[in-house]
Amino acid sequence: MIRKVLIANRGEIAVRIIRACAEMEIRSVAIYSEADRFALHVKKADEAYCIGSEELDGYLNPHRIVNLAVETGCDAVHPGYGFLSENPELAAACAARGIVFIGPDADTIRRMGDKTVARKMMQRADVPVTPGSEGNVESLDVALKEAERIGYPVMLKATSGGGGRGIRRCDSPEDLRRNYERVISETTKAFGSAEVFLEKCIERPRHIEVQVLGDHHGNIVHLYERDCSIQRRNQKLIEIAPSPQLTPEQREQVGQLAVRAARAANYRNAGTVEFLLSDQGEFYFMEMNTRIQVEHTITEEISGFDIVQKQIRIANGEPLPFTQEDVKISGYAMQFRVNAEDPKNGFLPSYGRITRYYAPGGPGVRIDTAIYTGYEIPPYYDSLCAKVIVRGRTWAELLARGRRVLGDMAISGVRTTIPFYREILDHPDFIAGRFDTGFLQDHPELLNYSLKRSHDDAALAVAAAIAAHVGL
Amino acid sequence: MIRKVLIANRGEIAVRIIRACAEMEIRSVAIYSEADRFALHVKKADEAYCIGSEELDGYLNPHRIVNLAVETGCDAVHPGYGFLSENPELAAACAARGIVFIGPDADTIRRMGDKTVARKMMQRADVPVTPGSEGNVESLDVALKEAERIGYPVMLKATSGGGGRGIRRCDSPEDLRRNYERVISETTKAFGSAEVFLEKCIERPRHIEVQVLGDHHGNIVHLYERDCSIQRRNQKLIEIAPSPQLTPEQREQVGQLAVRAARAANYRNAGTVEFLLSDQGEFYFMEMNTRIQVEHTITEEISGFDIVQKQIRIANGEPLPFTQEDVKISGYAMQFRVNAEDPKNGFLPSYGRITRYYAPGGPGVRIDTAIYTGYEIPPYYDSLCAKVIVRGRTWAELLARGRRVLGDMAISGVRTTIPFYREILDHPDFIAGRFDTGFLQDHPELLNYSLKRSHDDAALAVAAAIAAHVGL
Repeated sequence: MIRKVLIANRGEIAVRIIRACAEMEIRSVAIYSEADRFALHVKKADEAYCIGSEELDGYLNPHRIVNLAVETGCDAVHPGYGFLSENPELAAACAARGIVFIGPDADTIRRMGDKTVARKMMQRADVPVTPGSEGNVESLDVALKEAERIGYPVMLKATSGGGGRGIRRCDSPEDLRRNYERVISETTKAFGSAEVFLEKCIERPRHIEVQVLGDHHGNIVHLYERDCSIQRRNQKLIEIAPSPQLTPEQREQVGQLAVRAARAANYRNAGTVEFLLSDQGEFYFMEMNTRIQVEHTITEEISGFDIVQKQIRIANGEPLPFTQEDVKISGYAMQFRVNAEDPKNGFLPSYGRITRYYAPGGPGVRIDTAIYTGYEIPPYYDSLCAKVIVRGRTWAELLARGRRVLGDMAISGVRTTIPFYREILDHPDFIAGRFDTGFLQDHPELLNYSLKRSHDDAALAVAAAIAAHVGL
Repeated sequence: MIRKVLIANRGEIAVRIIRACAEMEIRSVAIYSEADRFALHVKKADEAYCIGSEELDGYLNPHRIVNLAVETGCDAVHPGYGFLSENPELAAACAARGIVFIGPDADTIRRMGDKTVARKMMQRADVPVTPGSEGNVESLDVALKEAERIGYPVMLKATSGGGGRGIRRCDSPEDLRRNYERVISETTKAFGSAEVFLEKCIERPRHIEVQVLGDHHGNIVHLYERDCSIQRRNQKLIEIAPSPQLTPEQREQVGQLAVRAARAANYRNAGTVEFLLSDQGEFYFMEMNTRIQVEHTITEEISGFDIVQKQIRIANGEPLPFTQEDVKISGYAMQFRVNAEDPKNGFLPSYGRITRYYAPGGPGVRIDTAIYTGYEIPPYYDSLCAKVIVRGRTWAELLARGRRVLGDMAISGVRTTIPFYREILDHPDFIAGRFDTGFLQDHPELLNYSLKRSHDDAALAVAAAIAAHVGL
């Protein structure tokens, strides 16, 4: 039995995992950098240890983390998302020291992390993949030849990429030439690998992904899909479950494809199988994410399952206590990623002290966040500052609730994406449930909102500064 | 069509109604006393009008309220709970001026408000009522004779009472003599009526109430029951839906009794039929509340329906868009009434400035409140400062979530009932789902908790005072 978990992460997902542990009467151990010493996950965990003065290295050092887990008597490590969550070294280091890694094993992470290996595995399992190069392309010349064969436009992708990075669309040989070195340099820097491959570009695709759970006893179920088509530069901003764009038959089909994919990978723990849905109604396997996702929340809202608790139970060796038939979804849920960014200024990150924070309540609202009044968002990490999740019985009720909640929420001290999301909620195509991954690019007018000004910012800043030195 | 609603209330329920209106694109008009000028409902409504410098009179003056509704172009009035919600004069004044009253008509309110009339109506409709006096008792002598006939112990009840006031248990003729004048004086002061009646005292009863909805087209459905047995002096503190103490047959039975009761009353709008469940497994009609209740939230959580929006639609003349068969409940929900009171000091109200307010998020949590950091709770109104609602797939998950959320929540500046509720959640009988309305009285040891001390209160008070003068 898992009794003490080290959480190898920070921010809202660390708080989310601490909450799951608290509800299971499992002790939680937080890690933090110097820059994070006032962070909420440090306050909320049962124990917290500084893992170094550097802003990033501590969160990215698998051996330091596993050593700390052993020293503090933890029997498991939860990686969250980002950081080391899809780095097989952390899972391997845990296994080597007899610590349970809350996620799939290192081999599964490695195989699914290598996009060309994953593609081949899916092809063998009869899961459709987009037409593309046979494995990685070794040089620009090979890439140009393969692209000719596949037909333009093509996507040039980093084999180890993920989270929307290391991807470029190429409409012509000139485009491919221009982007080739750029992607290689990007992926080398971000993922430590220079390997790239090509895929046919699916026009106007929708991003449909399926949440799956697999246990250590051969059971695999899906918890239905999420529509993550509202993206900016491959970064998801708004996610919806279930997709308002699928027929019941398509819902059934993509769920079965995801289970087939997870079975092919012999997948154990929570994972997500990502598909593109073409305007011809065809699903193509894109990749499998071998970790909890930012948007797992909306699946929890429509299914009633606590996915983080399920992750811990699966890692604990417990069989799934239900079958596919027991999974019922009801209503709709939508997540807004409230980022500390200024949409009107190229989505420039907007770091600083939160001088006012009001989270709306009432029916159908969930807020997952690590911010509080007086908290100073450090400039070293990602810009996600709150996940606002709404739930409704119908699509219309969901939209109305989303408008109400975004109107009700107040964050001062930093710019956020909230006003931009309000515009999206009022767009006729969005309201009609018609949008693909090009939606935001097609509608630059969504940025033409005006901001309300407040004269109270100076006084609020004083109050927040006092509160910050006192703590939560 | 209702397009603008005056909300004849304050506090969290006013905010709750404003949110329902916002989601329906209905304009909201708040009223407030001088003491409430910084209240959240004033900030969140589309318009707000001061209805006088007195603390209470404005909220209690039906004609001033209806005049304001007419002057501000409202087409409806929502009474919330408490104040004028069960005063037939407000409903009648609305009707006289062509304003929609969001609730049943004045006659229904009057009939159900008179406990002896309601009892007789239920007896005719074959809804079981507790044995009791034939109508009101005219004098102490009649009361003593009737009590002898019914058998001690008896409950002496104000005919116009409600909300747990105007009720006394009498174990003997001496008790009855002692309490008679006391209850008459209490009910005269609180409800303007000196009428009282007697009921047989049901030993160790559980308080089971059923949420019903009736429209103007003859449709009546129930949304299942709530268990409100955790009470202190007839004041509900923790409510649960559905009751963990009913068999499926009892659940079915009490739902049907409630629909029969509502049908007998020709009931239109949302209402609640309250029953006592004896230790012999028998249900007895207690009273019908002709308004939204504080604890409607937990029924929303298990059914997915927005009851306040349903009230508005019903008042608007819309037929219920579903039948009894369409009402499905799933999981459990529990509401904690976080009162600004000091349980260790006889539940003395604890008014003052909120210097710190942290509301927990994450899965399965809902907070309905009108407080915020810097808000000063005025001493003139009830002590409810937040409703903390949790939801879980199972009873065990619900309890675990309740513990986590109450542990996570932080309110400074006033004492609250939160630490007391944490003790209740850990009591073996509560965990086993065995409790009646005597539970708190039977377990005075639940008050023996110790409080964590904070050294930061002075600094927080400064920060809160600054924030308060700036506003939300």
